[in-house]
Amino acid sequence: MRKIHVIGIGAGDPDQLTLQAVKALRSTDVFFILDKGEVKADLTGLRRDMLDAHVPEGTYRVVEARDPERDRGAGGTAYSPAVGDWRSARADIYERLITGELGDEQTGAFLVWGDPSLYDSTLGILEEVLERGAVAFEYDVVPGISSVSSLVARHRTGLNRVARPVQITTGRRLAEGFPEGVDDVVVMLDAHQTFRQYAQEDVDIYWGAYIGTPDEILVSGPIAEAAPRIERLRAEARERKGWIMDTYLLRRHPRG
Amino acid sequence: MRKIHVIGIGAGDPDQLTLQAVKALRSTDVFFILDKGEVKADLTGLRRDMLDAHVPEGTYRVVEARDPERDRGAGGTAYSPAVGDWRSARADIYERLITGELGDEQTGAFLVWGDPSLYDSTLGILEEVLERGAVAFEYDVVPGISSVSSLVARHRTGLNRVARPVQITTGRRLAEGFPEGVDDVVVMLDAHQTFRQYAQEDVDIYWGAYIGTPDEILVSGPIAEAAPRIERLRAEARERKGWIMDTYLLRRHPRG
Repeated sequence: MRKIHVIGIGAGDPDQLTLQAVKALRSTDVFFILDKGEVKADLTGLRRDMLDAHVPEGTYRVVEARDPERDRGAGGTAYSPAVGDWRSARADIYERLITGELGDEQTGAFLVWGDPSLYDSTLGILEEVLERGAVAFEYDVVPGISSVSSLVARHRTGLNRVARPVQITTGRRLAEGFPEGVDDVVVMLDAHQTFRQYAQEDVDIYWGAYIGTPDEILVSGPIAEAAPRIERLRAEARERKGWIMDTYLLRRHPRG
Repeated sequence: MRKIHVIGIGAGDPDQLTLQAVKALRSTDVFFILDKGEVKADLTGLRRDMLDAHVPEGTYRVVEARDPERDRGAGGTAYSPAVGDWRSARADIYERLITGELGDEQTGAFLVWGDPSLYDSTLGILEEVLERGAVAFEYDVVPGISSVSSLVARHRTGLNRVARPVQITTGRRLAEGFPEGVDDVVVMLDAHQTFRQYAQEDVDIYWGAYIGTPDEILVSGPIAEAAPRIERLRAEARERKGWIMDTYLLRRHPRG
């Protein structure tokens, strides 16, 4: 039976690999690295560096494939109805990789930035491949340090306040309003800096980009003061590197 | 200047330590281990095993202290107004440990199960100690694999569904109703099995106890079927071990 590891490799700092992840890397015959185009070439390089550092040379192969372009429409991060198509296109690629590149008794791995449980499609796509029934395999999941955990660790703050909930959501959802009944909200996948919408409110922001890498940028403080600074730093960094990955926590103060 | 590491050590599986955590362990002179009484002696032992495995003998000291009892009232996990008192009592202990046990140029560490950012009081207490001004120190946070990440990895599912939010909350909050606008809810600190309240609804549960340890128990499925099983397994395990740590994800299906 073919085996697949879905390995969370942390949010950017190679030392965020867990011992469990290192063991999983070492038990892998074939690594599948999906390239999202030139702007993400840095990230592909980082993954190859991790393999060089932790897996003996000659014990594994790397197979790179091109990720299908997702139709993001005008929205940048808006999930359009094209998500379904994109997922199917990706499932086609995964199925082809697993069938064509992995021997019957071999182990393959997908390396996922952050934690595979959070805003990542790998698990859903593998389930889709299994449902199609053209190829059989077992798989397991190695949890990783998410960009969310990494963000708040760098800011030395918690996600939740005592006995209070925390919500993790998308920029698009946040644009519809601050979630009901929650004052601590982490926002991922926000290309539109939706936090600006709350600049007049009594909210603190903890923002970070390229967290855990040498390019890391952190800003925190009352949102009215921090927002213009984030906007400027974000634009500069994006210009300089060609891409940006950022996340933030909004912490609303109790009203009254 | 004294230094403190707040180190997330994962949810129970010692291989969930990150490479960053191992480095932090090795740069520590004094480990502070707060014992929550006999029922948690297992957990103190696990931490000592981690030190034995990763830090050369003779390079560190372990200082154990007794955690103040939190007045949990009748509720078990309900945070009562006594939280403030408990926090102050704990800050007293931390201050005494840092002042009395850590030399001026030494590094101390607190080892936190899971991720220090999620339902853990260590960061808040250290801030309280700093605010009091009796002792000065620098501190950093090493993120860890949370029980939440660990739970869903073992169940091989995601926290969120595509482009949807996820909320992490407490049993007490869940008792007040399913959060507004969210269909994926992770519940921590629930001594009352509040999930039973939703047994008649179209909800799946992904439950786990002692995740990542040899005692791990996992149950998933439609809540109506899974709830009685969880109730039985939970009672048996609690009886057998004397304590239980469990977490679950509730996944509500869209209405209609």
